[in-house]
Amino acid sequence: MDINSDAHTQHISQQFNAELEEVRNSLLAMGGSVEKQVSDAIRALIDADSELGKQVRKNDDQINAMELSIDEECARILARRQPAASDLRLVIACSKMSTDLERIGDEAAKIAGHAIELTEEGEAPKGYIETRHIGARVRRMVQESLTAFARFDTEMALRVAQEDKSVDLEYQSAMRELVTFMMEDPRSITRVLNIMWVLRSLERIGDHARNIAEHVIYLVKGTDVRHIGLKRMKEEVMEK
Amino acid sequence: MDINSDAHTQHISQQFNAELEEVRNSLLAMGGSVEKQVSDAIRALIDADSELGKQVRKNDDQINAMELSIDEECARILARRQPAASDLRLVIACSKMSTDLERIGDEAAKIAGHAIELTEEGEAPKGYIETRHIGARVRRMVQESLTAFARFDTEMALRVAQEDKSVDLEYQSAMRELVTFMMEDPRSITRVLNIMWVLRSLERIGDHARNIAEHVIYLVKGTDVRHIGLKRMKEEVMEK
Repeated sequence: MDINSDAHTQHISQQFNAELEEVRNSLLAMGGSVEKQVSDAIRALIDADSELGKQVRKNDDQINAMELSIDEECARILARRQPAASDLRLVIACSKMSTDLERIGDEAAKIAGHAIELTEEGEAPKGYIETRHIGARVRRMVQESLTAFARFDTEMALRVAQEDKSVDLEYQSAMRELVTFMMEDPRSITRVLNIMWVLRSLERIGDHARNIAEHVIYLVKGTDVRHIGLKRMKEEVMEK
Repeated sequence: MDINSDAHTQHISQQFNAELEEVRNSLLAMGGSVEKQVSDAIRALIDADSELGKQVRKNDDQINAMELSIDEECARILARRQPAASDLRLVIACSKMSTDLERIGDEAAKIAGHAIELTEEGEAPKGYIETRHIGARVRRMVQESLTAFARFDTEMALRVAQEDKSVDLEYQSAMRELVTFMMEDPRSITRVLNIMWVLRSLERIGDHARNIAEHVIYLVKGTDVRHIGLKRMKEEVMEK
């Protein structure tokens, strides 16, 4: 191989790495925007700030555009660079994670919609404390799943998956309480339903954060850990 | 090029086509199983058949396994065959569609869970007619999105997306009715909530069928039609 072709190969490979880096950065940027959407949606609800709620709904278009652009980048890299091994897994994982982030964005927009309705109806019903608490937890899950991705940190990813299970339990107990409250005070039905939909969205956001965490483990370890249960997931992560 | 290498190239390309065909068949097989899960879940609800409901929940593991196996096939094809153009789009679309099918399976399992709860509680509340009707519509949407994929039929895919919008409207009006019913008869709250969750799941299944339809348009036309609205989607599909 002569020097020229060597230089050419090196150039190609630098460009390839730059492209992989770019798609990774795009995903992290989308993650940052989605995280903000989630925290703004919860704030709109708790502060009864319908202006902020409207802003969140409006911003959802940008999140959708980011998803399309990341998928386009991924398809272009697959077509031109034909990545293998861990590079391929990175591209596949980014494409899957963009879908989860977009869905988190959708749920944030739904929460914002309920925040607007609740604000227009006036006084806050019971259930706000649970919403605030579960909201803070899933927001942290989203944040940590993205940090796990940024650092390729599988142990942090595992913690996100474990957290999801405990959030699900808290969600179920909050829902039971809300049902009781509804039965005791049927006049509150519409408003309590709004809170229930919010909780459902928060629980879904937790699921998507868990999905992202699972993609991080796949991309680092090369093992698909979806549907295998937390015990086996832990074994996969802890295996050297 | 000598005859041997020609034969070799032909052999490789035949094998490649066979692999693409296989992933396509796997996806259609998964689609068939998911379709059955949806229709069984609805039947369990309407016939108050909790045994069938339990069967649906049990079968969900198989659906999950199918998702993993399709994603594995896709990753293997990407790594070994480095597909381009429409072949690449087929692989990307299959990987995305497997996620949507798995989520449809999840929603079917949730519906089955509510069917079991409702059966154990006895008498059916109002809202069954809506469930039956919307259930039949989304089941057909799932079916047609898969037929559109099997035939690469973008016009059928477009109809699925259009149907989703009309199902959403019917869903909203059914939900309003259920809220009214709850307020008139607070003793029915728990049971009506079960029906509401079922409707929500059906509405989500419709969304996923629409996603599958959008992936079909992407794979045939090469244009990503997510988030662009039905009017522009129609223009893309009708463009020769």
